[in-house]
Amino acid sequence: MKIVTFGEIMLRLAPEGYLRFLQEPRFQATFGGGEANVAVSVAAFGAETEFVTKLPANDIGEACVRELKSLGVGTRHIARGGGRMGIYYLEKGASVRPSKVIYDRAHSAIAEASASDFDWQSIFAGADAFHFSGITPALSESVAEITLQAVKAAKKAGVKVSCDLNYRKNLWSTERAEKVMSGLMPYVDICIGNEEDAEKVFGIRPDGNNITGGKLNKAGYEQVARRLTEKFGFETVACTLRESISASDNNWGAMLYVDGKAYYSKTYPLHIVDRVGGGDSFSAGLVYSLCAGRAPQDALEFAVAASALKQTIEGDFNRVTAAEVERLAGGDASGRVQR
Amino acid sequence: MKIVTFGEIMLRLAPEGYLRFLQEPRFQATFGGGEANVAVSVAAFGAETEFVTKLPANDIGEACVRELKSLGVGTRHIARGGGRMGIYYLEKGASVRPSKVIYDRAHSAIAEASASDFDWQSIFAGADAFHFSGITPALSESVAEITLQAVKAAKKAGVKVSCDLNYRKNLWSTERAEKVMSGLMPYVDICIGNEEDAEKVFGIRPDGNNITGGKLNKAGYEQVARRLTEKFGFETVACTLRESISASDNNWGAMLYVDGKAYYSKTYPLHIVDRVGGGDSFSAGLVYSLCAGRAPQDALEFAVAASALKQTIEGDFNRVTAAEVERLAGGDASGRVQR
Amino acid sequence: MKIVTFGEIMLRLAPEGYLRFLQEPRFQATFGGGEANVAVSVAAFGAETEFVTKLPANDIGEACVRELKSLGVGTRHIARGGGRMGIYYLEKGASVRPSKVIYDRAHSAIAEASASDFDWQSIFAGADAFHFSGITPALSESVAEITLQAVKAAKKAGVKVSCDLNYRKNLWSTERAEKVMSGLMPYVDICIGNEEDAEKVFGIRPDGNNITGGKLNKAGYEQVARRLTEKFGFETVACTLRESISASDNNWGAMLYVDGKAYYSKTYPLHIVDRVGGGDSFSAGLVYSLCAGRAPQDALEFAVAASALKQTIEGDFNRVTAAEVERLAGGDASGRVQR
Amino acid sequence: MKIVTFGEIMLRLAPEGYLRFLQEPRFQATFGGGEANVAVSVAAFGAETEFVTKLPANDIGEACVRELKSLGVGTRHIARGGGRMGIYYLEKGASVRPSKVIYDRAHSAIAEASASDFDWQSIFAGADAFHFSGITPALSESVAEITLQAVKAAKKAGVKVSCDLNYRKNLWSTERAEKVMSGLMPYVDICIGNEEDAEKVFGIRPDGNNITGGKLNKAGYEQVARRLTEKFGFETVACTLRESISASDNNWGAMLYVDGKAYYSKTYPLHIVDRVGGGDSFSAGLVYSLCAGRAPQDALEFAVAASALKQTIEGDFNRVTAAEVERLAGGDASGRVQR
Amino acid sequence: MKIVTFGEIMLRLAPEGYLRFLQEPRFQATFGGGEANVAVSVAAFGAETEFVTKLPANDIGEACVRELKSLGVGTRHIARGGGRMGIYYLEKGASVRPSKVIYDRAHSAIAEASASDFDWQSIFAGADAFHFSGITPALSESVAEITLQAVKAAKKAGVKVSCDLNYRKNLWSTERAEKVMSGLMPYVDICIGNEEDAEKVFGIRPDGNNITGGKLNKAGYEQVARRLTEKFGFETVACTLRESISASDNNWGAMLYVDGKAYYSKTYPLHIVDRVGGGDSFSAGLVYSLCAGRAPQDALEFAVAASALKQTIEGDFNRVTAAEVERLAGGDASGRVQR
Amino acid sequence: MKIVTFGEIMLRLAPEGYLRFLQEPRFQATFGGGEANVAVSVAAFGAETEFVTKLPANDIGEACVRELKSLGVGTRHIARGGGRMGIYYLEKGASVRPSKVIYDRAHSAIAEASASDFDWQSIFAGADAFHFSGITPALSESVAEITLQAVKAAKKAGVKVSCDLNYRKNLWSTERAEKVMSGLMPYVDICIGNEEDAEKVFGIRPDGNNITGGKLNKAGYEQVARRLTEKFGFETVACTLRESISASDNNWGAMLYVDGKAYYSKTYPLHIVDRVGGGDSFSAGLVYSLCAGRAPQDALEFAVAASALKQTIEGDFNRVTAAEVERLAGGDASGRVQR
Repeated sequence: MKIVTFGEIMLRLAPEGYLRFLQEPRFQATFGGGEANVAVSVAAFGAETEFVTKLPANDIGEACVRELKSLGVGTRHIARGGGRMGIYYLEKGASVRPSKVIYDRAHSAIAEASASDFDWQSIFAGADAFHFSGITPALSESVAEITLQAVKAAKKAGVKVSCDLNYRKNLWSTERAEKVMSGLMPYVDICIGNEEDAEKVFGIRPDGNNITGGKLNKAGYEQVARRLTEKFGFETVACTLRESISASDNNWGAMLYVDGKAYYSKTYPLHIVDRVGGGDSFSAGLVYSLCAGRAPQDALEFAVAASALKQTIEGDFNRVTAAEVERLAGGDASGRVQR
Repeated sequence: MKIVTFGEIMLRLAPEGYLRFLQEPRFQATFGGGEANVAVSVAAFGAETEFVTKLPANDIGEACVRELKSLGVGTRHIARGGGRMGIYYLEKGASVRPSKVIYDRAHSAIAEASASDFDWQSIFAGADAFHFSGITPALSESVAEITLQAVKAAKKAGVKVSCDLNYRKNLWSTERAEKVMSGLMPYVDICIGNEEDAEKVFGIRPDGNNITGGKLNKAGYEQVARRLTEKFGFETVACTLRESISASDNNWGAMLYVDGKAYYSKTYPLHIVDRVGGGDSFSAGLVYSLCAGRAPQDALEFAVAASALKQTIEGDFNRVTAAEVERLAGGDASGRVQR
Repeated sequence: MKIVTFGEIMLRLAPEGYLRFLQEPRFQATFGGGEANVAVSVAAFGAETEFVTKLPANDIGEACVRELKSLGVGTRHIARGGGRMGIYYLEKGASVRPSKVIYDRAHSAIAEASASDFDWQSIFAGADAFHFSGITPALSESVAEITLQAVKAAKKAGVKVSCDLNYRKNLWSTERAEKVMSGLMPYVDICIGNEEDAEKVFGIRPDGNNITGGKLNKAGYEQVARRLTEKFGFETVACTLRESISASDNNWGAMLYVDGKAYYSKTYPLHIVDRVGGGDSFSAGLVYSLCAGRAPQDALEFAVAASALKQTIEGDFNRVTAAEVERLAGGDASGRVQR
Repeated sequence: MKIVTFGEIMLRLAPEGYLRFLQEPRFQATFGGGEANVAVSVAAFGAETEFVTKLPANDIGEACVRELKSLGVGTRHIARGGGRMGIYYLEKGASVRPSKVIYDRAHSAIAEASASDFDWQSIFAGADAFHFSGITPALSESVAEITLQAVKAAKKAGVKVSCDLNYRKNLWSTERAEKVMSGLMPYVDICIGNEEDAEKVFGIRPDGNNITGGKLNKAGYEQVARRLTEKFGFETVACTLRESISASDNNWGAMLYVDGKAYYSKTYPLHIVDRVGGGDSFSAGLVYSLCAGRAPQDALEFAVAASALKQTIEGDFNRVTAAEVERLAGGDASGRVQR
Repeated sequence: MKIVTFGEIMLRLAPEGYLRFLQEPRFQATFGGGEANVAVSVAAFGAETEFVTKLPANDIGEACVRELKSLGVGTRHIARGGGRMGIYYLEKGASVRPSKVIYDRAHSAIAEASASDFDWQSIFAGADAFHFSGITPALSESVAEITLQAVKAAKKAGVKVSCDLNYRKNLWSTERAEKVMSGLMPYVDICIGNEEDAEKVFGIRPDGNNITGGKLNKAGYEQVARRLTEKFGFETVACTLRESISASDNNWGAMLYVDGKAYYSKTYPLHIVDRVGGGDSFSAGLVYSLCAGRAPQDALEFAVAASALKQTIEGDFNRVTAAEVERLAGGDASGRVQR
Repeated sequence: MKIVTFGEIMLRLAPEGYLRFLQEPRFQATFGGGEANVAVSVAAFGAETEFVTKLPANDIGEACVRELKSLGVGTRHIARGGGRMGIYYLEKGASVRPSKVIYDRAHSAIAEASASDFDWQSIFAGADAFHFSGITPALSESVAEITLQAVKAAKKAGVKVSCDLNYRKNLWSTERAEKVMSGLMPYVDICIGNEEDAEKVFGIRPDGNNITGGKLNKAGYEQVARRLTEKFGFETVACTLRESISASDNNWGAMLYVDGKAYYSKTYPLHIVDRVGGGDSFSAGLVYSLCAGRAPQDALEFAVAASALKQTIEGDFNRVTAAEVERLAGGDASGRVQR
């Protein structure tokens, strides 16, 4: 199995522990970004991956490539050049204090990339799936155009396409998001979102939902999935269901909608170590297990267990093996020491 | 709005994380102390502050002044000289293991300060409020006398006076506390305490309270507030209500008693990062919001939300803006990532 | 009171916080091992101890001896020589992700020790109790033989013998465990185990137990204790009862079976800092309090409170005083700051 | 004495110790930039300062302002807004391996500032001196124009102007540098450079200089200073003289040219802790001591001693008092412990 | 160009900075070993490499493979299995205090590997050079035999063979070393050693050498190289020349002996950051530059400059590009900041 | 051999690396003090020791005792009680920037100790030597009196007495030092000082000495030693000779004066890691080797080599074995790796 993802990877700068920004003069410096996170996760499960992006030809870009290589992600199609690497600053919240993200990603090498940086025909050779998120086309007009080329090439190459809607209000307006995403959706097979995305991007929302309060109306998501499917003809729609009790405690599950039928996963009560990348690890688990031909309920449980584990791990990346995911999905959530 | 506070600030030496004292040869070295904490908190809300104390004229005292300056606290009236800076060692507890504090504050510059170190008339120029806690007069006879001069000068200058009773058994006996505090209370407008203070300082206690068990009899606090008001003529009495489930988990709320009426805040279930300074951040929120002319319930909710946030932040100081407090007081405790 | 323990102490290499193995190039490097943990714990309560083992004559072995000395453990009978010190790598789990242990203990100095390294008659001079766990005889045939010599010498010297069954599947098969342990049990007075040990070592199991699910059938343990007593004639059987809700949250208690009667302790809901050594600290608390002549219920409560505290402390060692244990056992679990 | 400086301050991200970029996933995160460094240094000597720049209105910009405040630098005239804060990545060299700097400063708030962000008349009220470096006008055309407005306003306000030529090849070409700088020089009283600047900016060079080889032809600098003075009418020209033996060992001195006469300082053999900001701390020492009315040789020795000390201190900022500088300038370079 | 190396890679545990072993409970945990160091170094220069070894199939072995991958080293031929990974503890010396190494490498997976773990024909497909050191055959009889198979296969495949004699007294006696190495030398083209190796392994020594005193008799090395060449028919003999002034300061150079002629490199005075791997990085530089067809003097200068840089870098690995080596070899040792 | 020392041990708080005080909010927290340093050093050589002092009965005092135990120092005669533990803050200098020490030792438990805290007859049972420094009697009048009792008891018990003059201007005036020390000297056999002490305490100085300049007039010390001997009848006088080139580089040697003859040691050029405790480690080496009956030159070389090694080790304590000292004293200062 080989899965290709395309998007931006950023330098992630985070204070240690629960410190506020620059409360001490030190940052944990790792890397992350939606589609890179998916590639890393899938590689950890044992599949072949290629992460496609553009990075500056300096030591920071080099370090990023090194990190991806160490995690088994293919980096052959990463274009090098351009001015800078995007950055995001992350302050981890706790209890009643939310996490905070400050983006410094404008003018990044990938946002300013041009179509000639990528040879999609070659990139998709031998690939089974292609994944991107709504963040990628939001980076710039140029990248939106490149994304469209990518999904078209993917379809042409017989590659399954998945998209995590992932609406980011800092990057574009809902109007522009709807316009661009509507052009991409016809090429998408698997559509993934959280409880806010369908509403923000396509104006499709569940009834009676109150996100801030954290109470989730599961039935409503079924409606949303149906409407999305009717509108764009998706094969599969998935929705992560996060009940945010506090920054430290969440309940985590998901719904899968296939062939007019909704599947619900177990719900995991999570004590969170690092929630960033939770959605990405769900996408990774889902694409991986669907590509592996698992039945809907199984695929969903794998994806949810994978993303539950992610949230116990520092950094954007989900550093878990398929065996570890299976153990949790199989029912062992007791946390007993593995010797 | 300008708020003056007076008291001791100490060097705070704490092991990292949940290590016991000197389990590793390293201390986090920050600063803290009741009235300094209030000044920092109020400055973070955006008000003008002056913190009044005495610090040794060496690099450690200098570093303390630097830290206060960085947080926007006025340091013009800090006297310099004397022998040493007080220290407190803090070991953070977890679950069934309580936090531990060892004081090494005797003979500090402020404890040995003399009346001539402070010119209260000048200090109170333009001020709206003056805050101190029961720790300040407990430091030494000389500081008790200076505190009395301060509250008298405050009254004369038309400055509102608030006092957090904050009884510390290591600093003085209940007998001496009652004697000194009784002399200061007539000048106090806003009296703040936790569930133990009124009893320890003035022998006034709620009925049926069992502090160790952590079960709180809210009605009892109303009685205490009424008796305090009758005795000293306070404008406002506030009481923080902490239900200690463990060192890691607390329920946190407060009561405000104004004009014979008791107001109760929401209760926040907290997963604690650092509980030191919780009471101080409540005082800061209360004084700040009362000075801003908020109605009792609003002022109380602001103060409780502020102090709930404090307990998710490392160090004595409450590093939150008024906007962050408003968001929580306004009902958003879900901890969702702020992007 | 003087308590002797015998076994292996290893270098413990653990990533910081909740990082996965080598997610950062750094290890916390401390020491630990069942019987050493017991000795440290008992020394912290104030009793005299001797920890008996063999360590290589190099700087790593030296550092281990230094650490034991610093904690008040007698090191006079530690043999020096042999090739290497055993190592275990520990990755701390969180929430739904379990902790992971990798052993690298083969060929350690103690595993390759010979009978002539230890003079049991001299070691037991003045001793009141001798403690070992099922790990010790599992290290090698030679150490199994030495352990037999030790318990015989202990009996001869009138020293009370306690054994924590502590089955380790990486070290031996259940067949070999049963054979060796059955030869040692006749010399044992106090037998300690967790919910799995009796079954793994002697094939004796509680009815209806489901360990992974974390639901405990307390009554079943009473049956097991009775059967163990009938088979080996133990004076006392103790069983720790851990309900694993997740890697972060456990309920912790224990049962004591003496003279045909079962005693149950309070159950502590724990938010775990480091669960390794929980069982050892229970053994330490039990042996210490039984040797001190406490009544069964008191001894049990002391042991459970001690081991509850251990799980809030980093490292294998239980760094708590008897007074701290008493405070918790006495009912104060509120976690309020001790000033 | 009050000194105003104007320029860019960046977030400085540096690996710990002598690690290469991202050899470990951690950065020291401090702040620095030529003119900010001068302001901090002068503030540490005890003078009043204002640092003028533009910073984004987010938590990173806020942290920068906090740091400047803590060091006693006036921040009243810092404009807030714009997109991002400039960053520079620093890898510290050792021995034969040079330090490395990667800039990520394009599109910073200050580079995109407009003239209306600064009210120079108000800024220069009460000021004695104004300092900027060649980096400031190189940031963008807009900032070049603002700098011209600033020097004109300074002259009009009777404020002495100093400029460190500080040529940065990444920011502009020598052609553009010459053009812009030539327009600014007529307003400059004190011109400061290192051994390369005059050549790079104005094509004026000492004879027989070989910078890479580290051998300095002092006489040549005298010629350069004379020519610069003749061309632009400077009151004073200063030149730092660095003999780079390796990344770890440098010899450090300077020349001052006033009224046709050259003064040479002592030369300090330095074992370098952090050489970044060495030139800035020289500028700070020179401007401070000239403003204080010191004679040329004294002013020069103060400036060189100050900048020698800087290179023993971590970070861009020179954290030394005037008294510490005097002690070294006065001849005590023995490094004996000060108790 | 593709270079294959074969040997052991160990987990390297080192205290931070200049601390003695376990002076603090923390180890830097990286990886290193002679032939792995060569592969990493050559990969950093831009050549293709394969490092051949055997590693345990656990998370520690996995992390090692990840690290090698991140540095661009081919890991396809690393066998997985066996018991443990070798460890070495490193305490960094300073000034008059020497560095200290404690090995814990017995029973490692590679030491216990069998011939069937490696398919040399496949490994050498497309390779230009094969490198090993005297440490590899010293690991065990089995590995000595595998090494012989490897050099034979290399010769058969037309691959150039280089060997760093690297005598380790802890691994074997001089007698056994001479016997085994003499059997391997006939297949070796490039023989590399330091000032002690030829004597320790083959009893060939320079006249008048006094290593501890640190004074080197260069002429003597010429004699040794000639005798080695006469005895084994080497194409090239190289010898690193280290003058140890102290643990902190060394002079570093080398000699190359080709076709009866000796070439001497520049000597670099080094202030050492980490000297471990200095010899390996010389081997890497030499093999790389000889394979690239450089003339003897050029090849030598490249190798010496590369290894001089290594000693300014933390860890076993030489993290420098060919361009960085060229700059130093080209004469720029001034350490000026590269912007 | 058993050596007793008496004095104050303090908590030592030092920033990491070369940071200035509180440049980051963190302190290394170790312990140190003249006589404790001597005890630790002697224990590391393998002799028996007892360190006598008074420490507060809290967790900080406990941690100090633990540290001494871990290093093999006898702690049986440490009195417990009193208010606080003395602290010293240490900022490590580099190059032209000197190290800085701030004392916060007033009112420490030992300074306020009373005669009844120590039973000298019991303390000296079996002892061979007693060491104290001029710091001890300077702590307070009470400790001066206790010191006099100690030296009298030592003499009575036939114990050899050594004293390091160690003048501290912060603790007492030269007048009071002369008065108190003159009363103690008649009981002293071995008198140790550095180049300033004899002058500061007894007004005896070498001719033509210029300490700040760092140039040492060795002959002058011979005069001083003779005059000291004539005045107080010392058996042996030793003087450490430090040439301070900078905070980073010193030349280190010593002179011994016995029976009218002066012996000079080798001089070690040192690159300093931590110079604090250098003099103490010399005292330790001297007392240890004289007690062991070494001849003057040998004893001196041992002491100088020991103290040279100390200055390469972090912290006050000299963590070296006698074997390590012998290797250096024997001529191996090359710093080659010990494997």
